[in-house]
Amino acid sequence: MPFTLHPTLARDTVEVTRLPLCRALLMNDRRFPWLILVPEREAVREIHQLSPADRTALVEEIARASEALERLFQPDKLNVGALGNIVPQLHVHVVARSAGDPAWPGPVWGSGPAAPYAERELAEIRAKLAAALARTG
Amino acid sequence: MPFTLHPTLARDTVEVTRLPLCRALLMNDRRFPWLILVPEREAVREIHQLSPADRTALVEEIARASEALERLFQPDKLNVGALGNIVPQLHVHVVARSAGDPAWPGPVWGSGPAAPYAERELAEIRAKLAAALARTG
Repeated sequence: MPFTLHPTLARDTVEVTRLPLCRALLMNDRRFPWLILVPEREAVREIHQLSPADRTALVEEIARASEALERLFQPDKLNVGALGNIVPQLHVHVVARSAGDPAWPGPVWGSGPAAPYAERELAEIRAKLAAALARTG
Repeated sequence: MPFTLHPTLARDTVEVTRLPLCRALLMNDRRFPWLILVPEREAVREIHQLSPADRTALVEEIARASEALERLFQPDKLNVGALGNIVPQLHVHVVARSAGDPAWPGPVWGSGPAAPYAERELAEIRAKLAAALARTG
């Protein structure tokens, strides 16, 4: 079955790069440096529905996204989450958090409306993240 | 360095079992069936700080916890998260969510005070989870 990105993810993000398993997307919300990894597997909702090999690939790509965000943004903490209560397609958030960011120390999910990047800013952070991800793994 | 469970995790949970990498803990909050996996590695805060072998073990134990919760509670969705904004010791939440639970569709983190189990109820769910986890993996 061909893979189709959920329309809500397509609307709220821009693609940064494609990793071996996942599309790496940037959430268009300048409040938080925020990647979303979406395994290119159709009709998978939960981590345990992936094959063991895909699960290992997923955790390695989570580590790569974490390292890229850490190098670029020096966060106080990474937050990693697979929720999917609203968008059921399996996707993993990897978010750089800083003490004093608008949701700290609470979660980013449900923390209010996104603040979209300006066009030039979005292009810059997307390019930096693509380069940083390419240096990992 | 010997592993010591963070005192906040020790206070808020009971141990269910020990998996190859993680202690599997039950959050003492009857609002949500909620496991917490804590890799027995000292001074690790982030997933990417684990070795690749430990990362694979972690994602396999997340899958086992997810399967155990799914069999026992038939949730509408599993929520998996590693936040650590308050408790820095690496720990992964695996939570069985149901449409209409007290935080739905928001995250459980920051959703208000825990509702502790009654003593007998806690012993029962702990035993059921230990048996369900033993049947996985």
